[in-house]
Amino acid sequence: MDEFELIRRYFARAGRDPSIVLGIGDDGAIVRPDADRELVIVIDTMVEGVHYPAGLDPADIGYRAVAVNLSDIAAMAARPRWMTLALTLAGDDAGWLDGFSRGLFEAADEFSVALVGGDTTRGDQTVITVQISGDVIPSQALRRSGAKPGEDIYVTGTPGDAAAGLALWESNNVRNENQRQLLRRFARPAPRVELARELAAHASAAIDVSDGLFADIEKLLVASGAGGVIELDNLPLSVPLVAVHGKEAATELALGGGDDYEIVFTAASVKAPAIAKLAKRFSVPISKIGTVTRGDALHCTRAGRELAYRHAGYRHFVEASDD
Amino acid sequence: MDEFELIRRYFARAGRDPSIVLGIGDDGAIVRPDADRELVIVIDTMVEGVHYPAGLDPADIGYRAVAVNLSDIAAMAARPRWMTLALTLAGDDAGWLDGFSRGLFEAADEFSVALVGGDTTRGDQTVITVQISGDVIPSQALRRSGAKPGEDIYVTGTPGDAAAGLALWESNNVRNENQRQLLRRFARPAPRVELARELAAHASAAIDVSDGLFADIEKLLVASGAGGVIELDNLPLSVPLVAVHGKEAATELALGGGDDYEIVFTAASVKAPAIAKLAKRFSVPISKIGTVTRGDALHCTRAGRELAYRHAGYRHFVEASDD
Repeated sequence: MDEFELIRRYFARAGRDPSIVLGIGDDGAIVRPDADRELVIVIDTMVEGVHYPAGLDPADIGYRAVAVNLSDIAAMAARPRWMTLALTLAGDDAGWLDGFSRGLFEAADEFSVALVGGDTTRGDQTVITVQISGDVIPSQALRRSGAKPGEDIYVTGTPGDAAAGLALWESNNVRNENQRQLLRRFARPAPRVELARELAAHASAAIDVSDGLFADIEKLLVASGAGGVIELDNLPLSVPLVAVHGKEAATELALGGGDDYEIVFTAASVKAPAIAKLAKRFSVPISKIGTVTRGDALHCTRAGRELAYRHAGYRHFVEASDD
Repeated sequence: MDEFELIRRYFARAGRDPSIVLGIGDDGAIVRPDADRELVIVIDTMVEGVHYPAGLDPADIGYRAVAVNLSDIAAMAARPRWMTLALTLAGDDAGWLDGFSRGLFEAADEFSVALVGGDTTRGDQTVITVQISGDVIPSQALRRSGAKPGEDIYVTGTPGDAAAGLALWESNNVRNENQRQLLRRFARPAPRVELARELAAHASAAIDVSDGLFADIEKLLVASGAGGVIELDNLPLSVPLVAVHGKEAATELALGGGDDYEIVFTAASVKAPAIAKLAKRFSVPISKIGTVTRGDALHCTRAGRELAYRHAGYRHFVEASDD
């Protein structure tokens, strides 16, 4: 199957989006942006065997490739509009492409983003790059750099689930409903696109959680020139995560697991009622897990007592005094 | 070196472009499009060992990765604005990255496109995806689909050089100045960005030549629902190409070699003087090489006599009557 046929068969669909002047099939796509909007551009790559296991359901791989990019769009509080796909394929498996494209369009349809172009190539390893252009009202985008000392640190959803799900899958250990739920959180991330757009009115800074909650909060704080404290007892641990791993391991996974694609954001304490309302409206847990502080370090506390968290190599807690 | 450090060291530069609201370093880039413009979005991947030899000068690889995408922007007659880079690295060679980023910015600066974001990942093989957003006055973009029977077919530059240069490099046979010039045409494609923007006023359809002149003209004609004739004696063969390969092989390379990143376009015959003026102004050869016809087939003629061109596997000419 040549590139032309591959694209025609799996990726070209009749468009219904009036913003698309010219879609797949020319040297480039042409789209018509709304007047008075800024554009938000994100790009993210998933490498087979690095970012997802090769044997994962191809529909999940397709869905996930779109969802992780949408999570970056969400972190900016933008609206997703147009997507391009650069797909480097190691194999020539029509079944894989069929599943992959199905999952990709499932996510695209769910979040109203249109595939307008792409490139397919051959390589030794499957590499999937998705690029999404979104838009936002000027100066309404959320950035990492706006957190101020005294503000609260929040996280959406229940971090740790995805990392637990991946580990279960890799150890061939997905048997009961709790385990299946955790795997699903890895395979089908839920980018907080609509929720985050509403959060823009209340939050001072945001980042999406891809590398691990602790590490990503650190990035937000570095960008903001601030420090912070995470209260471990306030981490939102899902019922399946605690059921499968116990509370201590669940806490470690929530802090360091990664692949959550949840949103961490900061907001002044006066915003708490509005944020609680959004959590209810979107049926997504939004948990206050810490506080922005002066300084430049991120600490963890449990019941007011400080714990040092080492997040290189081994991830474990020690009493701060032992550190 | 972690991703953060890698990006900081090789890819983050202070921006001077007022259209960039937020560049590298957040979850996404924010840019401000001009009012009343359509956006043109292109994406293209180069896989090491597939699209370029691994041992090519890393500065050439970086330059080329940008240039081949700019060629797609040129084929749409758009103006390049903002670029993102998804870089999957097999090695961890600081020297390679240093050269690669230097070449990338050389092309970016030459064609006024700004790197605003990206993603770096690890893989078994180096895979380079560049995505460029450009803009164009509404309805001014060139497409593949506008060619009409009776119009002339033109090509910019001298196709065949790049394929010859790559073959010379691969056979370790770059010794004299002609050979070096041909290699340079592979390593440093010259995307016809400014020229193509001027052509938009005169051309009816355009495509960039990446897969080979014959194959890409066929694509333009299929999109236009037309046929065509290429007059082989009118193919613009460069002096180095003919010197190294002789006229017959040079013709084959020009028709089927690929990697030229020149622009093929069609225009009514009344446009010939304006096109000649542009060729002079930009010091780029623009050659009339054929005619759009009714029907759906692309033929080659020499001195009025039809030749069948087989462009699968072996590429060679036979008298049409023998076919």
